[in-house]
Amino acid sequence: MTSDHLKHAFDVYDTTLRDGAQQEGMNLSVADKLAIAPLLDELGVGFIEGGWPGAIPKDTEFFARAAKELTLTNALLAAFGATRRADSRAWDDPQVRALLDSQAPVVTLVAKSDIRHVERALRTTGAENLAMITDTVTFLVSEGRRVVLDAEHFFDGYRYDPAYGLEAVAAAFAAGAEVVTLCDTNGGMLPDGVAQIVGEVHAALGHGPRLGIHAHNDSGCAVANSLAAVGAGADHVQGTVNGYGERTGNADLIAVVANLELKEGRDLLAGAGGLREATRIAHAISEITNISPFARQPYIGASAFAHKAGLHASAIKVDPDLYQHIDPLRVGNDMRMLISDMAGRASIELKGRELGFDLAGQGELLGRVTTRVKDAEAQGYTYDAADASFELLLREEVDGERLTYFDVESWRVIVETVPGAPDLANAEATVKLAAGGVRQIATGEGNGPVNALDHALRQALRATYPEIARFELIDFKVRIMDTMHGTDAITRVLVETMDTGAETTWRTVGVGPNIIEASWEAIVDSIVYGLLRAGVERR
Amino acid sequence: MTSDHLKHAFDVYDTTLRDGAQQEGMNLSVADKLAIAPLLDELGVGFIEGGWPGAIPKDTEFFARAAKELTLTNALLAAFGATRRADSRAWDDPQVRALLDSQAPVVTLVAKSDIRHVERALRTTGAENLAMITDTVTFLVSEGRRVVLDAEHFFDGYRYDPAYGLEAVAAAFAAGAEVVTLCDTNGGMLPDGVAQIVGEVHAALGHGPRLGIHAHNDSGCAVANSLAAVGAGADHVQGTVNGYGERTGNADLIAVVANLELKEGRDLLAGAGGLREATRIAHAISEITNISPFARQPYIGASAFAHKAGLHASAIKVDPDLYQHIDPLRVGNDMRMLISDMAGRASIELKGRELGFDLAGQGELLGRVTTRVKDAEAQGYTYDAADASFELLLREEVDGERLTYFDVESWRVIVETVPGAPDLANAEATVKLAAGGVRQIATGEGNGPVNALDHALRQALRATYPEIARFELIDFKVRIMDTMHGTDAITRVLVETMDTGAETTWRTVGVGPNIIEASWEAIVDSIVYGLLRAGVERR
Repeated sequence: MTSDHLKHAFDVYDTTLRDGAQQEGMNLSVADKLAIAPLLDELGVGFIEGGWPGAIPKDTEFFARAAKELTLTNALLAAFGATRRADSRAWDDPQVRALLDSQAPVVTLVAKSDIRHVERALRTTGAENLAMITDTVTFLVSEGRRVVLDAEHFFDGYRYDPAYGLEAVAAAFAAGAEVVTLCDTNGGMLPDGVAQIVGEVHAALGHGPRLGIHAHNDSGCAVANSLAAVGAGADHVQGTVNGYGERTGNADLIAVVANLELKEGRDLLAGAGGLREATRIAHAISEITNISPFARQPYIGASAFAHKAGLHASAIKVDPDLYQHIDPLRVGNDMRMLISDMAGRASIELKGRELGFDLAGQGELLGRVTTRVKDAEAQGYTYDAADASFELLLREEVDGERLTYFDVESWRVIVETVPGAPDLANAEATVKLAAGGVRQIATGEGNGPVNALDHALRQALRATYPEIARFELIDFKVRIMDTMHGTDAITRVLVETMDTGAETTWRTVGVGPNIIEASWEAIVDSIVYGLLRAGVERR
Repeated sequence: MTSDHLKHAFDVYDTTLRDGAQQEGMNLSVADKLAIAPLLDELGVGFIEGGWPGAIPKDTEFFARAAKELTLTNALLAAFGATRRADSRAWDDPQVRALLDSQAPVVTLVAKSDIRHVERALRTTGAENLAMITDTVTFLVSEGRRVVLDAEHFFDGYRYDPAYGLEAVAAAFAAGAEVVTLCDTNGGMLPDGVAQIVGEVHAALGHGPRLGIHAHNDSGCAVANSLAAVGAGADHVQGTVNGYGERTGNADLIAVVANLELKEGRDLLAGAGGLREATRIAHAISEITNISPFARQPYIGASAFAHKAGLHASAIKVDPDLYQHIDPLRVGNDMRMLISDMAGRASIELKGRELGFDLAGQGELLGRVTTRVKDAEAQGYTYDAADASFELLLREEVDGERLTYFDVESWRVIVETVPGAPDLANAEATVKLAAGGVRQIATGEGNGPVNALDHALRQALRATYPEIARFELIDFKVRIMDTMHGTDAITRVLVETMDTGAETTWRTVGVGPNIIEASWEAIVDSIVYGLLRAGVERR
């Protein structure tokens, strides 16, 4: 088999936006989903399951907007839904119609395949459930949709009544389903059992039809169960980025694919990025979900290639491959022990070059910048996501002083409710500063303290620097850094600003004991950097 | 085989205190180790590897104090160390003598078994490395110690040069080692490879000697790799609680044991607690290591038995076993229903039952609550992480009015910098309300607006409700919901509060156009709920 053949015969099917969103504490907005989908496409998955249109209003909106706004290079969108209700017709079941209306080229139908669930949860007969599968698949295929059937609770059901499970699978294929996914819905399977059952199903069906695997991690074996199914002949793997999902999560799709690509020589991802961008993409997705990344996550975790000094240190110097299972660059990760003093300097030198500073040979300066970055990161700053703040820091060390365009004297924010209507609050901020040799006092209003402060600062600067009218604050993220201190914790704010004249954006970071101070720092940096970038001199 | 036989022939070997402590960010004191060991003993592991005496001064002290202070019921202490240095004698190698001096009844020796590591990292010959194994094991056995030999990099080495790997293992057994542990030191193995190699080693050795498995999670398969080794004949499993360890961590010992006990019918833990105490013990250990528990961790994670999908909830109502792989009580965990916009009436009915409300048959009420939850979640609320806010909402629908303890008239917050020192800000809040029939005006200061508001509210309520002095705000999380609107976005705040008198906690949610309004809502709810829970009547 050529790798091209494999690429087409094997589905990498992502369900981060649907099953992943079942995770406790995750609540994805339509905008979040529209931001995550292109990242999945860049990673190179073949299918992106976007949600359940018709059942969840947000998901209906997602598909409507995706049809207009999303351009995917590799992946096809899949709409998830259920087989028709018992004793109805597929073509006038509103839930089934909503799947068609979503305009997704692929429809993934969940169906019961465990007779106990048919009788006790669905409260219908085994025969009617089979008819529901047949009718719904037939209808969607006749409407030009590619259909994947997710056989829910397949493994548990097969153990209880293998004949019924096989009948459900066979009904789906007979009606035109392209793939039937065997789901370990409760996540309790172990790899040997998965391999055995997938093998038996394949044998019973004659090895023609394509089987998929959908694993959950309740036994801690979701990745291994997915591999076991592939080993037994499955060629469609479902999972989620970062292993998001209900309970213990779904199979971690990046780990599954990395094992298959890097250890079994398959070629599965079609994206511009592929595995080499996996670490960046997985972390970008966790920024959007706002769920802290798990440092120990295989392949892409911050600790995944971090070595603590000790027994390993000297051997790693001799040959890093003696102490790592793969070259971390293959998944876009880094060996962290080497990012000690020396490598830290090297990456800062590279970063400087990117920004137009030649720091080669300037050991003392590089040392100072490295130390400052480390100190700042220990306080909660992060420069990975705030290039502009890093450039201001670097310039300060190069020039010997901080670049300023104005001198702040003080600022104040008041947020108060309307007496008698404590649900309505107004914010008002006053900023005092000197710009262009003139003392300015300006007041701004807003729907919150940061918004008011942003307005007041712009008001105070507009006469001296009219250029800032083009700067628009387009993204604002808050993270509480040490949550065990309650409202006393350290707050980090990341701000993204756009120069609407030049269509460029930049990001700055602020850290402080509260959101307002942290925001102030990030907003001031964003304006200073914008003026610098626009070539404006201090007036 | 009787279960009694299995209990004696199978080692559950914990290395949380040694290999687990290699985790990035973990730094265990001697006192921490002395506190963790009895918890491991209560869990019922057979062996507790305490550290490397002689090489790490803290570990030398741990063994010295353990000999005097620790009383273990089930477990034996194991001291970890290395074979003697090349070209020396075991009995006068200070590192080997320190293992004897530790007084641990079991010594676990790490030895090279990959010829490349022998030659390139250890820089000696294959023959000398075998002599180091033979001499060190012989010496320790002659001194009355039970010896486990950890064959480092065994799998990678065996693939490169199987004969040398087998020679190393055979040398250890010939010298009197009780178990030889095959280590996947770099963690890159997949289960099929592990099963194959363990099987081959067993076959080569004639199935007599006892083999162990030591797995790391770099491929996301540590649990499955441990099971694969056991399936191929290993009867000694090493791992750590919570899967702590370098890089991606070691095999999660609780998940491995739970799979073997609950799914394969073995009886492995000897402790007073056993698996039924696993959740409590794992969380107690994470309190000591001060590393936040991972909610999605198999078996013992806070989310491990939490259900969100509406589809699942209706079936769970019928029979919980339809949607969980084991009864959570078997590992001391609980099933929880999460309320979210994916929830249907069934999950709200179940959640109500959990909170003591019988909603069965109250279709109209259930419909109203479901609609309100969905509307609120569309606005940015999330109830799966805010049980207390959900209960207040549910009570409001049941009672027909919102529970209140006080009537807010207005509030105001001022944050201002010190003139001339714009990096220093102070916050001051004033709250006006009526409580206990009296109008109260109170002012509070804080290091940020929310902190100041919290202080002012408590100040205004303390005379009427002195109980609130026991309520402590212990966690505070902020999420900007729709980041594309910059500082205009919707903000969600989650607050966790503890009643320090009752040692219980609850979580509330607030949503608003800015962090202050959102925080105000969550804080007010947290106090109302706390008073309700404490049985306080409105005064």
